[in-house]
Amino acid sequence: MKRLAIYGPGLLGGSVALAARKHQAADRVALWARRSEAIAEIESSGLVDLVSNEHHEVLEDVDLVVLATPVGAISAILNAILPQLPKGAVITDLCSVKVPVAAIVAEALRSSGRDDLKFVGAHPMAGSDRTGFANASAGLFEGASCAIISDDPNADASAVALVRDFWAALGCHTIDLAATEHDRLVARISHLPHVAASALVRAGLSDRAGELVGTGFKDSTRVAEGAPEMWTEILTENASEVAGALEDYIAELSEVLANLRRLDNERVLGFLADARQRRQDLYHTVATEKGSDNQAS
Amino acid sequence: MKRLAIYGPGLLGGSVALAARKHQAADRVALWARRSEAIAEIESSGLVDLVSNEHHEVLEDVDLVVLATPVGAISAILNAILPQLPKGAVITDLCSVKVPVAAIVAEALRSSGRDDLKFVGAHPMAGSDRTGFANASAGLFEGASCAIISDDPNADASAVALVRDFWAALGCHTIDLAATEHDRLVARISHLPHVAASALVRAGLSDRAGELVGTGFKDSTRVAEGAPEMWTEILTENASEVAGALEDYIAELSEVLANLRRLDNERVLGFLADARQRRQDLYHTVATEKGSDNQAS
Repeated sequence: MKRLAIYGPGLLGGSVALAARKHQAADRVALWARRSEAIAEIESSGLVDLVSNEHHEVLEDVDLVVLATPVGAISAILNAILPQLPKGAVITDLCSVKVPVAAIVAEALRSSGRDDLKFVGAHPMAGSDRTGFANASAGLFEGASCAIISDDPNADASAVALVRDFWAALGCHTIDLAATEHDRLVARISHLPHVAASALVRAGLSDRAGELVGTGFKDSTRVAEGAPEMWTEILTENASEVAGALEDYIAELSEVLANLRRLDNERVLGFLADARQRRQDLYHTVATEKGSDNQAS
Repeated sequence: MKRLAIYGPGLLGGSVALAARKHQAADRVALWARRSEAIAEIESSGLVDLVSNEHHEVLEDVDLVVLATPVGAISAILNAILPQLPKGAVITDLCSVKVPVAAIVAEALRSSGRDDLKFVGAHPMAGSDRTGFANASAGLFEGASCAIISDDPNADASAVALVRDFWAALGCHTIDLAATEHDRLVARISHLPHVAASALVRAGLSDRAGELVGTGFKDSTRVAEGAPEMWTEILTENASEVAGALEDYIAELSEVLANLRRLDNERVLGFLADARQRRQDLYHTVATEKGSDNQAS
């Protein structure tokens, strides 16, 4: 791949730029940023080939555009850049919810009349509670899973291959998924855990509880420190899938509650043993992590 | 403190023995074990002054007895050892649920007629997913919180001070609590998170979800790998408090579910922002941990 343009100079866009340079995933790495302070900061870092708020500079002869902005900014950016993109260019993104992004891109492509352009969404499962270009890291995507949305009506096989190879070059383990399938899965393994951790903080930290907490509570609630505005956008964009996951979660908890109320030890044991087995199967480790609480009783 | 006897040679009893030796918290450390294989293993380690299955050897001139067995074994041990304990000896334990233990001890003391003996329960918030003496560690309690049950009818001020000083000598930060208060708090910060993590594994890992999981899911579900039999005992012993905590947790989740269904972004944001703030207040850190998922949208 020859020329890469990244829109959005935050933690993720910046990390894409640094990783692409490190792994020589592109001959030229250009970064588009809106604010002049951001442009000056990135320019002085010397870490990219070009940083600019001029679309025509960033997009010159570009092969792949990575949209690394919040969902809310994508429509305006596409309306500005689609007319300027070289023939046959490919667009990808890294948003956490894929169905809404696919709809925004489809509408922008339709109204631009550019049926030569291709779109293949992506979602690398990597991030940080830190934000901004200053915290970007060339190793952020190393070993992370990355969903490649291979069923987009504006994609074709060669565009899917280009986007898949790009994220793999940055260190990701790629997984082809349909947009709807992606949104259903992340509702369960990412969005639900975020809600669960936040509710655990609120229901758990009463009175003097904070004085007693150990490593278990800390690990169980870590993700609750994510940026509330960003997570509100994620949860509400994927509201129907998250709601379905929450219903299943509440049903699991309600069953444990009923079994505890009737002191049905056998069913409580079955629930705990099944969960432990599934987690061990997932991580291919057999209980070797240290630090959990309450091994005392 | 002069002479220490520990009942139960597992991870926790073993760690108490090693920590007591390391910190010179007792002049003599004796360990009682039932099985001859365990006795031989511990004897050959050379890490304690005495290991035996003979009560009279372990209890000779003892000042403090630490019960480090499952709750289910305590009554039989007390019935065997109470008649043999020196006058004025103090007993402590490290079980995860304190009200049931207090009842067992009170009944054993009453029927033994030994009103000279004192009992002060304790609960160090430390452990490991590993088990057995071979995984015991002198540093296990370093920096851990430890509840001291200071309201037991069979305690007095000097016994409370002895037990508090003992756990502090092992490296714990001690907190005086009533047994009922302890059980209410651990239901929220330890037992509820265990149920929440187990339910998250069961509700989260559908279909291909396992292929996508990142560090967030891993951390959020770590405690679900605890031993199911032990945790069933803990949850059912503290069933009424755990049920109350679960009801509050389900209520939090149900409110988020309702707000997502009606796309009430403001209330979702309020929920996430409050949880983040409370967690930050607890850990006195401002979002400096790395590795959370899905910062992309």
